[in-house]
Amino acid sequence: MKLQNGAEYIDSLRRLKPVIYYKGKRIADVTRHSATEPHVRAAAMTYALAAKPEYRDLATATSHLTGRTISRFTHVHQNIEDLIKKIKLLRILGQKTGTCFQRCVGFDGINAVYSVAYEIDEKYGTDYLARLKNWLTYIQDENLMVVGAMTDPKGDRSKAPADQSDPDQYVHVVERRADGVVIRGAKLHMTGAVNSHEILVMPTTALDERSRDNAIVCAIPIDAPGVTMIFGRQAGDDRRDKLERIDVGKPKFGVVGGEAVLVFEDVFVGNDRIFMNGENDFAGLLVYRFAAHHRANYGACKTGLMDVLTGAVSYLAQIQGTAKGSHIRDKVTEMIHLSETLYSSSIACSAEGSPTPSGAYMVDTMLANVCKQNVTRFHFEVARLATDIAGGFIATMPSEYDLKSAEVGHLVRKYFTGVADIPVEDRIKIGRLIEAMTGGTAMVESMHGAGSPQAQRIMIFREGKLAEKIKLAKALAGIPQNVKPKGD
Amino acid sequence: MKLQNGAEYIDSLRRLKPVIYYKGKRIADVTRHSATEPHVRAAAMTYALAAKPEYRDLATATSHLTGRTISRFTHVHQNIEDLIKKIKLLRILGQKTGTCFQRCVGFDGINAVYSVAYEIDEKYGTDYLARLKNWLTYIQDENLMVVGAMTDPKGDRSKAPADQSDPDQYVHVVERRADGVVIRGAKLHMTGAVNSHEILVMPTTALDERSRDNAIVCAIPIDAPGVTMIFGRQAGDDRRDKLERIDVGKPKFGVVGGEAVLVFEDVFVGNDRIFMNGENDFAGLLVYRFAAHHRANYGACKTGLMDVLTGAVSYLAQIQGTAKGSHIRDKVTEMIHLSETLYSSSIACSAEGSPTPSGAYMVDTMLANVCKQNVTRFHFEVARLATDIAGGFIATMPSEYDLKSAEVGHLVRKYFTGVADIPVEDRIKIGRLIEAMTGGTAMVESMHGAGSPQAQRIMIFREGKLAEKIKLAKALAGIPQNVKPKGD
Amino acid sequence: MKLQNGAEYIDSLRRLKPVIYYKGKRIADVTRHSATEPHVRAAAMTYALAAKPEYRDLATATSHLTGRTISRFTHVHQNIEDLIKKIKLLRILGQKTGTCFQRCVGFDGINAVYSVAYEIDEKYGTDYLARLKNWLTYIQDENLMVVGAMTDPKGDRSKAPADQSDPDQYVHVVERRADGVVIRGAKLHMTGAVNSHEILVMPTTALDERSRDNAIVCAIPIDAPGVTMIFGRQAGDDRRDKLERIDVGKPKFGVVGGEAVLVFEDVFVGNDRIFMNGENDFAGLLVYRFAAHHRANYGACKTGLMDVLTGAVSYLAQIQGTAKGSHIRDKVTEMIHLSETLYSSSIACSAEGSPTPSGAYMVDTMLANVCKQNVTRFHFEVARLATDIAGGFIATMPSEYDLKSAEVGHLVRKYFTGVADIPVEDRIKIGRLIEAMTGGTAMVESMHGAGSPQAQRIMIFREGKLAEKIKLAKALAGIPQNVKPKGD
Amino acid sequence: MKLQNGAEYIDSLRRLKPVIYYKGKRIADVTRHSATEPHVRAAAMTYALAAKPEYRDLATATSHLTGRTISRFTHVHQNIEDLIKKIKLLRILGQKTGTCFQRCVGFDGINAVYSVAYEIDEKYGTDYLARLKNWLTYIQDENLMVVGAMTDPKGDRSKAPADQSDPDQYVHVVERRADGVVIRGAKLHMTGAVNSHEILVMPTTALDERSRDNAIVCAIPIDAPGVTMIFGRQAGDDRRDKLERIDVGKPKFGVVGGEAVLVFEDVFVGNDRIFMNGENDFAGLLVYRFAAHHRANYGACKTGLMDVLTGAVSYLAQIQGTAKGSHIRDKVTEMIHLSETLYSSSIACSAEGSPTPSGAYMVDTMLANVCKQNVTRFHFEVARLATDIAGGFIATMPSEYDLKSAEVGHLVRKYFTGVADIPVEDRIKIGRLIEAMTGGTAMVESMHGAGSPQAQRIMIFREGKLAEKIKLAKALAGIPQNVKPKGD
Repeated sequence: MKLQNGAEYIDSLRRLKPVIYYKGKRIADVTRHSATEPHVRAAAMTYALAAKPEYRDLATATSHLTGRTISRFTHVHQNIEDLIKKIKLLRILGQKTGTCFQRCVGFDGINAVYSVAYEIDEKYGTDYLARLKNWLTYIQDENLMVVGAMTDPKGDRSKAPADQSDPDQYVHVVERRADGVVIRGAKLHMTGAVNSHEILVMPTTALDERSRDNAIVCAIPIDAPGVTMIFGRQAGDDRRDKLERIDVGKPKFGVVGGEAVLVFEDVFVGNDRIFMNGENDFAGLLVYRFAAHHRANYGACKTGLMDVLTGAVSYLAQIQGTAKGSHIRDKVTEMIHLSETLYSSSIACSAEGSPTPSGAYMVDTMLANVCKQNVTRFHFEVARLATDIAGGFIATMPSEYDLKSAEVGHLVRKYFTGVADIPVEDRIKIGRLIEAMTGGTAMVESMHGAGSPQAQRIMIFREGKLAEKIKLAKALAGIPQNVKPKGD
Repeated sequence: MKLQNGAEYIDSLRRLKPVIYYKGKRIADVTRHSATEPHVRAAAMTYALAAKPEYRDLATATSHLTGRTISRFTHVHQNIEDLIKKIKLLRILGQKTGTCFQRCVGFDGINAVYSVAYEIDEKYGTDYLARLKNWLTYIQDENLMVVGAMTDPKGDRSKAPADQSDPDQYVHVVERRADGVVIRGAKLHMTGAVNSHEILVMPTTALDERSRDNAIVCAIPIDAPGVTMIFGRQAGDDRRDKLERIDVGKPKFGVVGGEAVLVFEDVFVGNDRIFMNGENDFAGLLVYRFAAHHRANYGACKTGLMDVLTGAVSYLAQIQGTAKGSHIRDKVTEMIHLSETLYSSSIACSAEGSPTPSGAYMVDTMLANVCKQNVTRFHFEVARLATDIAGGFIATMPSEYDLKSAEVGHLVRKYFTGVADIPVEDRIKIGRLIEAMTGGTAMVESMHGAGSPQAQRIMIFREGKLAEKIKLAKALAGIPQNVKPKGD
Repeated sequence: MKLQNGAEYIDSLRRLKPVIYYKGKRIADVTRHSATEPHVRAAAMTYALAAKPEYRDLATATSHLTGRTISRFTHVHQNIEDLIKKIKLLRILGQKTGTCFQRCVGFDGINAVYSVAYEIDEKYGTDYLARLKNWLTYIQDENLMVVGAMTDPKGDRSKAPADQSDPDQYVHVVERRADGVVIRGAKLHMTGAVNSHEILVMPTTALDERSRDNAIVCAIPIDAPGVTMIFGRQAGDDRRDKLERIDVGKPKFGVVGGEAVLVFEDVFVGNDRIFMNGENDFAGLLVYRFAAHHRANYGACKTGLMDVLTGAVSYLAQIQGTAKGSHIRDKVTEMIHLSETLYSSSIACSAEGSPTPSGAYMVDTMLANVCKQNVTRFHFEVARLATDIAGGFIATMPSEYDLKSAEVGHLVRKYFTGVADIPVEDRIKIGRLIEAMTGGTAMVESMHGAGSPQAQRIMIFREGKLAEKIKLAKALAGIPQNVKPKGD
Repeated sequence: MKLQNGAEYIDSLRRLKPVIYYKGKRIADVTRHSATEPHVRAAAMTYALAAKPEYRDLATATSHLTGRTISRFTHVHQNIEDLIKKIKLLRILGQKTGTCFQRCVGFDGINAVYSVAYEIDEKYGTDYLARLKNWLTYIQDENLMVVGAMTDPKGDRSKAPADQSDPDQYVHVVERRADGVVIRGAKLHMTGAVNSHEILVMPTTALDERSRDNAIVCAIPIDAPGVTMIFGRQAGDDRRDKLERIDVGKPKFGVVGGEAVLVFEDVFVGNDRIFMNGENDFAGLLVYRFAAHHRANYGACKTGLMDVLTGAVSYLAQIQGTAKGSHIRDKVTEMIHLSETLYSSSIACSAEGSPTPSGAYMVDTMLANVCKQNVTRFHFEVARLATDIAGGFIATMPSEYDLKSAEVGHLVRKYFTGVADIPVEDRIKIGRLIEAMTGGTAMVESMHGAGSPQAQRIMIFREGKLAEKIKLAKALAGIPQNVKPKGD
């Protein structure tokens, strides 16, 4: 793999010229702009770990295509061990960055497209898998970051893609040429897009025959003509943009994945970069597999974030002199309990993984959906408990400008002191870290990233094997198995 | 009452010269500074409602001291009807401002100090109540805003006030003179302080004999010499300070009560403004009564905020075309259910109110504590549900600068459209409103305002009448009442 | 009122000859049969309290029809004070019986029918209210117990009443005569039916034009020809039937209301006892009002039960030596907190009550539904906490036969001892009380009595005033009120 | 293994003569007594599965001692695969019996004692492991059922073992002889004891030097002289004892594990059956390991029970015509979600297992404790949801005697009919199954089996690695790692 560490990754980004807007202005260099630099740094950590001996086993893998050592984030899972190593890697990255490191979306997209391309080829005699392998070898060898692009704007959600008044609400092919296709539309919430090298476009939902033009999977360089990104606002973004060091809470890394709107205005894609083209019957399967992989991850990376939060409030309680209170201990216990419950489903859906026909391994989809559903509950509860333990000062503290002020700095120092011998700055920094990790954007991302809660519930019901469970109940109640209500 | 409406209140503030710092700089005029103006407007609403016929019955009262019409926020509750009217008033104010309107702290302080002054006088033959009545008549007639100042910094919380290495961690009398006292210390989280006329200082906890110097209750003008305020940071404060109209979410009013650190550097208080001075045995009772009144309020004002949130997500769901989904309806139902459950305890603790020896009415303290405890759960859950219904765009939306940009504005408009005929700005504004009301500071305030959750649990256990409940159980189980474990 | 106390009530039951079956056999005397006697005793408590000076103010009222003193359970609420007194009475009765005392169903039925009869008369010029007043005066003067009969079997619930293959699945008029009607059908879950004097039949749901024969409200003596009851099984009923004194847990009173199936096999009802007859457009309103009254009650009586449970586990913790553990205290605190939260909604919906056109007072329906919804959550959680504190022995204790056994009694005594000086029987009795109050039937009744949870959610959504809440949100977000999505 | 199937197991029990009392009388034959027969049948299923080809891989293992095929329930886990297979086996057994099949306690005891005996031998030069291997080879070859006996009565729980006024409250050695020891005391809640062949006695808690006589681990035949059992009462036990076929709910198997009090009145144990004797410093480790194994299991077997409940309510909803309601589907989804969340932790703690010094594999103790903690929440919530979906009839249904009655049987049939074509008996049977599985004893067992909730919380806090988590937070907040509060 060409990019060997974080610095090389950052250098590589400087050679690209993507079109990115933020607060109404073009961003010239994502690696040096205050809005995007923290996200670049978080993504760089995925490169950095691969270079450290103690993490290499988790952070790299051996390519099944080339036999070469590659970043795990470009790997196609070959067995259960791969799935579990990924989970462990993500928890560590969550612990080290306290935020989204963005590289999973492309990773999961690669794995989902790989297995589906195999099955399309089987059914239709296409050569998508061969094309994908070529592109993927390039990605692996160069060690590129890929943004998986799935979520369409959807317009009026009570209507199907084909019924939208504006067809661009779902990315679609607007022109077919001998050498490729032209696509139009947009993808929302694109994590890590602005600092990726490549885009992997995928459909956002199962598609019927009327929506064959939406059934497009393809790879596009991030700075291809016609690609525009608009970087979103986040909680606390102005503190970050003003380069505050304390009040921003987590000065080095961002609060989320640096999401952007990604617009395709008649972008051309050559045939060698197209991995699905009109096979609408496979769109649902692709979404299903991508979603399962992605949902599994959330129980790992978010557990890493919760680990940080648990550490932060534990330290703050020590500083404030409350750490030995039985109710504080009980709340910390609950934070750990919820974190580990969440982590369990990431491990479990990996341990129960199984191969697809292509040989690529899938997580257990039921448990992966269960995992993400719990993220949408537990992360909020952990944040609530952190807020409880931390105390009201995380909402009312004076700014770092006041802390450093000649007029009132001494008052801030005097009245925000905790136990003896701990600098008041430490207390304030920990308070700001908790503020940054429990408020707003960070939580919303846990709710909707990898699919909103209802999406998981639909899957959980569908995969619940109710007919089998009914058999169990009948057997125990002494009811013959052959009696059934009509229509059920 | 002299100040008849919001404009007169705002004018009155301009005549004061309090010392306020924010982001390291002095604020010259709270009514015109971007950081404080929204909070001034929210407080002004308490004046405005008194001027509107449809709210006058709730927003005003008849003074039991003078018989004159006064703002309810300066009234001493004379009966259950007063208590219930207050609750209804607060819910309406919460609905109209979507935030804290700040005037309850002084209101509750007045009521608590009133009843306790009576009892101190009874026991010690002091004349605190007479002094208080004089001052209160002034407050009522002028219609002044009073900040109730209770929460001390507390330093190392594992130690009692008398055991702190820095005695200033709890406000205390540092000098006693014939004509008054000099106090030193600070109060944190002072809601509405910067736009109040007067400060009502109260102790923060029960006090033993060693802490008689902390047993001080007194009134101080907000711009008295030696008083300094440092205005705190809030989530999204930079958007507010930059006068953004959409991205700030709630352009007119703030996200919380505009909390400040309030420092007393050797402030002199004359005898006529002192309402407790060394009677440490009454400190606990005062805190108990203040806390009960204040906790009761949270079930009213926060229900108002939840009403707004419920309306916001309902409208957003309509715009997005999801309003008819059964899971959306169910989540909205849950939001209403939690809001009304919370409101019930505010109403109930008022309906179960009773007179103190002074004649001033108290809420039922058990139910008032139960009320606040539920705020610390239900507001978070309502916010979580709002986040769920709203969708991920509240975390990833481009800024209003992008919306108005010549280069990308059309893309934002195109891809953030919902159902036909609703301007895209409306969707974005509602999204930003939800963002502002669910993230960070707003939630922390619900957790810790009026006392952290554990403070309520201690009260709930204490007032749980376990001995009586044990009798009930024994009677039903057929166990003689006279058999009891030793030491219980 | 004729029946002055529990003994007179019990005597009065002996003069009736209702047809009741239990475990396949006819019950000759409900006051002396092991299955029904505990329920008779619980109902008798409603009579007993009226005779005790300390409870008379709550347990009796002054009839608005006659001016005479009557049991509150036969009263039509005339003001908010009446509503609140009812709530306080029910909590005390719950505390004293630890179970359902059964008299609310008829009580609420009387109040709902009263106000609806007035409105039917207004619209159709009928004389239902006059008839009802006659019958009600009789009920009040005699002080009779009335079972409110609402819940029909419903057959296939995916079908409306008029679409059932068996029309008897909803009680209906099968014959109309000059002097009255003949009805057929059944009512399920009839609390207190077997020890009531009278039945008040009501429809179970809103009815369309096709179901006018189901729109029947009438009063029937419990031993009228054609009325048959089948008494249901309950958790632990065999221990009760075998007259065990310890293992039954609550030897004097039952675990629930003594529910029965109530069958009408062509029962004739005279015109003077008919209060609705074909006015299907009022069926929904009747159910709505009955349900609101009844749901309000659950927050009172069940709080009484939770008080008993809280006392029971507190005492058991003392006996076991665990009462001072911080986690035990915290769980007891939570039990109290949930109980009082629940109680708050009963008080609140009463304090917010208002008059119907007839003058009879209604509770606030939103808060009453909120109240019952919380019963279906909090009673379960309180029971779970009780189980947690109690310990595993409530599931594994030897029987009272073993306790008294010559061979092993000494071993039971030795190994179930707790702290010194408390008889081992006390620990076992408390354990059995907790077992009886947390398992099975008792909990199911809390879930479904007064309507299943979804019934409340439908009401909460309907009464949520979403249009008004949307206005609040628009105002704060700065959105014009006149822009609305089509069709919403 | 000698006992090849359920029938052979049952025969083997008939050859034993244990002393068992129930309801004051001696039980002559556990395989034919109504109280114990259902539990024997449930345990027999562990033998039966080993005989079925489709389950053999899960239900048997290869002994690491002899290389022979043995029941998995007598196996010492050799790797992660063993741990996971156990989990899958337990879920299936839970599904097939709907109750506790009792064999895990001895299984987990064997595994815990094995690894600890190795470490005692290492430290003290004893030969406990050799003795254990001899005994275990006998257990494996004969395929015997072993009851793990841990929970002591504990007397006054505020006191340590050595401080009890009655030393017998903790099993202890009362006499030491050359050939063995004599023990006295009792063990409570002994699952499966009455139908086991052998007892494996273990201490119940960590022990200090004063309690060396309590540090005893040994094996005792179930019918050894001095061993007495008293079989406990359970919810619904009388229906079972009267051999009711419908109302008992689950006619073939019991509701729990058939718990008994197990008393040792000066029982002699020979040296070859002693595996710890005075090494109090290892008591805590033994409990820790036993508890972790046992807690891991609960996420498997209880998930099996929840599967049955989910099937039962799904079928009942079909019969009642409510299965397609969105709120029913949502509640079923939640039941599945909670079940699978629970299952995840069983799988995860196994997948994260690791070897002890003895080579025997341990589950991850953090995740195992997390697993059990969730049982104490989710099983209750699943039961609550089942009760919600089922409807009130499970609390009010007439008995099967009424169903079969000549007088009222036709009424029960008529009014408990659901959708067409499903026999009314089926509805009633499913209702009774749900009643049996959600009420009382069954739930208490989930709460306290394998340790009460607080026991898990203590472990979760201890294993939470707070120091490491604090480091993570400091790193992200930019705080030097070397600054630490004193004493933390």
